[in-house]
Amino acid sequence: MEYPSKLLTEIVDEIAKLPGIGKRTALRLALHLLKQPVEQSDNLSQAIAKFRKEVKYCEICHNISDKAVCDVCSDRSRNHQLICVVEDVRDVMAIETTGEFRGVYHVLGGLISPLDGVGPSDLTIAKLLKRLTDYAVDEVVLALSATVDGDTTNFYLYRQISTLNLPITISTIARGIGIGEELEYADEVTLVRSILNRVPFEKSIKQNR
Amino acid sequence: MEYPSKLLTEIVDEIAKLPGIGKRTALRLALHLLKQPVEQSDNLSQAIAKFRKEVKYCEICHNISDKAVCDVCSDRSRNHQLICVVEDVRDVMAIETTGEFRGVYHVLGGLISPLDGVGPSDLTIAKLLKRLTDYAVDEVVLALSATVDGDTTNFYLYRQISTLNLPITISTIARGIGIGEELEYADEVTLVRSILNRVPFEKSIKQNR
Repeated sequence: MEYPSKLLTEIVDEIAKLPGIGKRTALRLALHLLKQPVEQSDNLSQAIAKFRKEVKYCEICHNISDKAVCDVCSDRSRNHQLICVVEDVRDVMAIETTGEFRGVYHVLGGLISPLDGVGPSDLTIAKLLKRLTDYAVDEVVLALSATVDGDTTNFYLYRQISTLNLPITISTIARGIGIGEELEYADEVTLVRSILNRVPFEKSIKQNR
Repeated sequence: MEYPSKLLTEIVDEIAKLPGIGKRTALRLALHLLKQPVEQSDNLSQAIAKFRKEVKYCEICHNISDKAVCDVCSDRSRNHQLICVVEDVRDVMAIETTGEFRGVYHVLGGLISPLDGVGPSDLTIAKLLKRLTDYAVDEVVLALSATVDGDTTNFYLYRQISTLNLPITISTIARGIGIGEELEYADEVTLVRSILNRVPFEKSIKQNR
């Protein structure tokens, strides 16, 4: 498609670089902005430029944060001996919403993905290992997605943490049939894992609050 | 959901103001930008700010254009006595892609929509009427969407142009069964219209190039 204006071509090309947004949607969004007050475009434009340049990360867990040390890491009532390793800020938000996890986090900033050219050095793995060496940590919970990249990262982290030779328990979040999910629709691998990792009935009752 | 950073809250809120984009998608897009070079955020930010502020319209047809008079309106080989009235630049692009329409356009910039608070004065209708009065025009083709707003605008334009008392033919684009579409799946209204507005067989054969 040829656009009748250079400015229009530019904005469509830039918006269409975002994942999941094609040229047609980009054009629709651009024309939408045209009908809105100029402030909306200005605010959007400034928010994008500012976010990328001024975003800060917590010195300890590397979650996005406005402070040098985030609210979770500076909360003394939390268990700093229990570290949950996650991919990004969305996972922290999801777990925090449950209100049940009282440990702290370590945000990797991605997953090891040879196909996308993401190696261990692109993530905050070295900082995690240093954190485990410098502070007394009891347990590391690997809470990564159950994907190929997630599994690769899990194995890499497991080996790296093991070589530290520290008295740290390494665990992963449980895989199984989701609450409210029907057995017959679960995939085979999940079903097998849920049987192999079965839990005592009394324990499961107690968790049904 | 609570975001751990003000900058993150800002960018998510602004992106989520775009139509069809929720907070979850907005967060995904923001985190995507974080993994890209800073230039991409800068280019996107600048394209948005520039587009809204510097966008120009053709003086004659009001299509988006970098020039005072757009390429279509300044093309002497086209039929300037035949004006096709469309909603926005996307329709011009769609019709131009066919390469079959040799007339010129008039871009309304929207449709009359009482529900969305868009009245005739928000569109370029007055300018269309002035254009019809000032220049000798033979025919106006109303090429608007077959929606409630499109029909409302069609009727309004028809009445306004009629009151000018000029020798102008007013037509609308044909509604009917699309090429390649199966009869049994067409909706009733379209089917009835396609029968009522039937065309001589010889004419239809000639159009099948």
